[in-house]
Amino acid sequence: MKLLKTQDKLCALRKKMDTAGVTAVIIPNADPHQSEYLAGYWQILKWLTGFSGSAGTAVVTKNQAGMWTDFRYWIQAGAQLDGVQLFRQGDTGVPSFDKWLTDTLSVNDRIALDGKIVSASQAGSLKEKFMQKGIVVDTTMDLISDLWQDRPPMPRTPAFELDSIYAGETRKEKISRIRKKMADYNTDCHVLAALDDIAWTFNLRGQDIHTNPVNMAFSLITMDKINLFIDPAKVNTPLRTALEADGVALFDYNFFYETIQKLDKKSRVLLDTEKVSDFIYQAVKKRSDITEAPNPSAMLKCLKNEVEISHIRDTAVKDGRAVVNFLHWLCTSDTPKTEISAAQQLLNFRKEQNAFLHPSFDSIMAFKEHSAICHYSADPDTDLPLSPDAMFLTDSGGNYLTGTTDITRTVHLGTPSSQEIRDYTLVLKAHIAVATALFPSTARGYQIDAMARRHLWQQGLDFGHGTGHGVGFFLCVHEGPARLSSLPVDIALRPGMLLTNEPGLYREGQYGIRLENMVLVVKERETQFGSFLKFENMTLCHFERDLVDKTMLGAEEISWVNEYHQMVYDRLSPGLAEPVREWLGSRTRPL
Amino acid sequence: MKLLKTQDKLCALRKKMDTAGVTAVIIPNADPHQSEYLAGYWQILKWLTGFSGSAGTAVVTKNQAGMWTDFRYWIQAGAQLDGVQLFRQGDTGVPSFDKWLTDTLSVNDRIALDGKIVSASQAGSLKEKFMQKGIVVDTTMDLISDLWQDRPPMPRTPAFELDSIYAGETRKEKISRIRKKMADYNTDCHVLAALDDIAWTFNLRGQDIHTNPVNMAFSLITMDKINLFIDPAKVNTPLRTALEADGVALFDYNFFYETIQKLDKKSRVLLDTEKVSDFIYQAVKKRSDITEAPNPSAMLKCLKNEVEISHIRDTAVKDGRAVVNFLHWLCTSDTPKTEISAAQQLLNFRKEQNAFLHPSFDSIMAFKEHSAICHYSADPDTDLPLSPDAMFLTDSGGNYLTGTTDITRTVHLGTPSSQEIRDYTLVLKAHIAVATALFPSTARGYQIDAMARRHLWQQGLDFGHGTGHGVGFFLCVHEGPARLSSLPVDIALRPGMLLTNEPGLYREGQYGIRLENMVLVVKERETQFGSFLKFENMTLCHFERDLVDKTMLGAEEISWVNEYHQMVYDRLSPGLAEPVREWLGSRTRPL
Repeated sequence: MKLLKTQDKLCALRKKMDTAGVTAVIIPNADPHQSEYLAGYWQILKWLTGFSGSAGTAVVTKNQAGMWTDFRYWIQAGAQLDGVQLFRQGDTGVPSFDKWLTDTLSVNDRIALDGKIVSASQAGSLKEKFMQKGIVVDTTMDLISDLWQDRPPMPRTPAFELDSIYAGETRKEKISRIRKKMADYNTDCHVLAALDDIAWTFNLRGQDIHTNPVNMAFSLITMDKINLFIDPAKVNTPLRTALEADGVALFDYNFFYETIQKLDKKSRVLLDTEKVSDFIYQAVKKRSDITEAPNPSAMLKCLKNEVEISHIRDTAVKDGRAVVNFLHWLCTSDTPKTEISAAQQLLNFRKEQNAFLHPSFDSIMAFKEHSAICHYSADPDTDLPLSPDAMFLTDSGGNYLTGTTDITRTVHLGTPSSQEIRDYTLVLKAHIAVATALFPSTARGYQIDAMARRHLWQQGLDFGHGTGHGVGFFLCVHEGPARLSSLPVDIALRPGMLLTNEPGLYREGQYGIRLENMVLVVKERETQFGSFLKFENMTLCHFERDLVDKTMLGAEEISWVNEYHQMVYDRLSPGLAEPVREWLGSRTRPL
Repeated sequence: MKLLKTQDKLCALRKKMDTAGVTAVIIPNADPHQSEYLAGYWQILKWLTGFSGSAGTAVVTKNQAGMWTDFRYWIQAGAQLDGVQLFRQGDTGVPSFDKWLTDTLSVNDRIALDGKIVSASQAGSLKEKFMQKGIVVDTTMDLISDLWQDRPPMPRTPAFELDSIYAGETRKEKISRIRKKMADYNTDCHVLAALDDIAWTFNLRGQDIHTNPVNMAFSLITMDKINLFIDPAKVNTPLRTALEADGVALFDYNFFYETIQKLDKKSRVLLDTEKVSDFIYQAVKKRSDITEAPNPSAMLKCLKNEVEISHIRDTAVKDGRAVVNFLHWLCTSDTPKTEISAAQQLLNFRKEQNAFLHPSFDSIMAFKEHSAICHYSADPDTDLPLSPDAMFLTDSGGNYLTGTTDITRTVHLGTPSSQEIRDYTLVLKAHIAVATALFPSTARGYQIDAMARRHLWQQGLDFGHGTGHGVGFFLCVHEGPARLSSLPVDIALRPGMLLTNEPGLYREGQYGIRLENMVLVVKERETQFGSFLKFENMTLCHFERDLVDKTMLGAEEISWVNEYHQMVYDRLSPGLAEPVREWLGSRTRPL
């Protein structure tokens, strides 16, 4: 019998739970690589519950089923879930899923949690929490695979080389730097499961995850071996030859699980418990000493090199022209438009640009009250026609061979209200506070975040997301470890880090505003008080002068806007068609 | 033979090390209560090395002796140490003491560290670090006491009741709230060693530590018993009767160590590993379950109640008059003055105020280049005569029955340079940024700190200390857990927290500036974006209008100064002598 409905699936799952002797199953939204976005093969949560958001955890007991997700997805989950109770994670009085489970279960109960997909760090903390209540978490079982009859296949897109004329460094050089870090930690073996870390290390790209140019793979690096575990069908002969010439030994993806259970007993293994699964961690722990630390590639990767930076600067021009062409079309063309057709139009403009491959994430095109939903995604059921009477927010990006982009602009398609102008100006002030910040080399992202937020806080306003996140180089649009957020993330900002600057303001049911540029951390000056850094702007597109209340800006803020607009015009206009160039000229006039 | 010199002491210590079979001793600057400032009895580091600063760690091996201290004390330690090598903790290339020790010692070496004074958390992390290198840390030995022939006695100042007309809450009410927190943690026994937590909980004060109104004591609170361990000679009969009437059982201070080793085996003990010694932790761990969490009293104590707040507001007037009288004397009287005589004069003015007991810390009176040393302390060797040609920084506070104060002002005794004016104005802008901040109830201190620092960072300037610390109520001038600093301390600011706002700027060899008021977190408004808080000013004293460059201030900053100055004049002038009142009037004229 084919399992079509959630109720049927839950029923079958509960039979398996009975047989396995467990009273609950925790299903995280995860894959064996701790990816943010999941290939279809790993969308277990969606298969079971119908919920398609990027963050959530399902819990199934003998007679209850719940799904926890954060405020970004409450509305969406409410619409998609059927027969599964929605828990609004973070809402007042709503228990976390582990709190709820400890209250629901009894001493000596057993919970199944698939150790091949949950991270070692999450599994560890859950095991400890439940152990305190006498409940066992068993991470050796996968209760889902047998039930999932129409499971999508594992992705099999071809892997391809990112030439070092783009990457700026060969894989041999990168691995040599990783080995140096391994030695600093007094380790001699390093397990890599994070797909963007592997893509960066090996200068490989693919399309295994929608909008993320990565390949499903694992890697084991020792002081004399470089093993890459990847479906051989993805690696064509020239690529295989090139990899082998650099000392890379290729093995089948699945062979990784055998290998990891047979490491040399003397190995001193470096791994990041947030970036490997519990299965990997437990297998290594059985035989070897483990040093837990962030993947060296994560820190090396986030510091863009001079070649990458030069490409990112050029990409800003290409991407800026695509977005200006789009905004010109949006604001001037008579074609009937909807949120979805607007996304298609922007994609067409990006496709005209050299070395563009695909979007870096699904565009957010949000009209009217949709713009107040931070992670709105238009579908045919919600698609709004655009009319000249409200705010429109567009958040999008491209993956080019020459870099990844991420930009948000908010425009008004008609005549803005004074509150809309005031709100837009406040968000712009927050944006400028980051853009103009000078800060010592000891500064953390949370300090920059506070400078942006102050402008909103002073009016009793705030926004629920971080001010910025790291961006990959032709890789994932969200990249760690640095970020600009209110969280106490203890990572100093360093020259070469590429981040977004995207404060916002969202009035539920009315409209939302977000203004996002990418910024690069660069050196500014040395003083007797230390080495000071600043941000170089890496996005070229005008802001909306009609949404700015000049009286709310200080002289330095006005100068910043005018200088930025002059730069936008100077750098973009040579490649724009005459009407667009003229239009951009009028949009970038001094305030 | 009496041990007079460090070399003799080291020699005797090394003999004891030999006998005890240890190759190194670590000597932290600590007492059994994890106090910031130490009574003479616990000033082991000073006895051994001559160093009298408040932060440091000494390490003695068979043939080396080193002392680690942070940048505040490098100069002082350099002058005081004799025969002990100074390690400038935090300086480039200087290893931490544990790193240095692991490099110096060999596998199977043993280190002695007195478990009765080192905190459980520090001992735990040191044991773990050294264990990885095969080195044992033995916390069962005190190698010093036998050697210290002229050790000062344990302090024996009388304990006294802080009436609830000051404290605002009886000890029975406080203990009832603590027990509620104990139950929330599913515990039934709570160990308290922190002296300020004990003083607050029992509404007791003393003078056992210079400028800190506390008593040497321990406490054990269960669901039906309240045990206080304190030298009986300190508790007079009426106080004993009052305590016993509230259900407090009194035991000798030293009896605590016996008691802690014989806890009921079923006890579920709540303790803070940063606030109890390793000895206590190990004794409890042998028999009972431990829940590690901050002392409930620490969070309850930092949220000042309405009675305390009302007293703090009144104390601001008294302390403000003392400081204004002092500044008037400093700036107008012809008496020859030095740093030390100025401190005496300020103390005299504070003594005129009602309910003043003693300073809340040793005043910093720093002239010229001394003002650039954050923790300068004048002594007869360094005491500078004051002359009308340089900056003077005065940081001081009082302990009144009605509250603890902490204020810093910087004045110029002659004609300031343009750089001095510019620097003063920047520090004032940083101060105003905090004073005028509005922030949601989720905000952390590091976000407020960033707002202050931005004004200096934008000019390539910075200061090396936090923007603010918590302040006790007639208790310690430094009180946790909240602070305004760059560190990622994950404690939300809550209404009732009393903090300092003290940005600064220090030009080594020239001058330093610091402007400090106390501020109270209060509710401001509710919006759809959350509950917003602000700071209420709790210090009344003018700033130096002659050191302000008005052109560097925005309109809102100018208004803030003018309104603050008007309030200072209105509230202080009724109690000032005519010439001082007139003088204050001229200092508080609108900018």
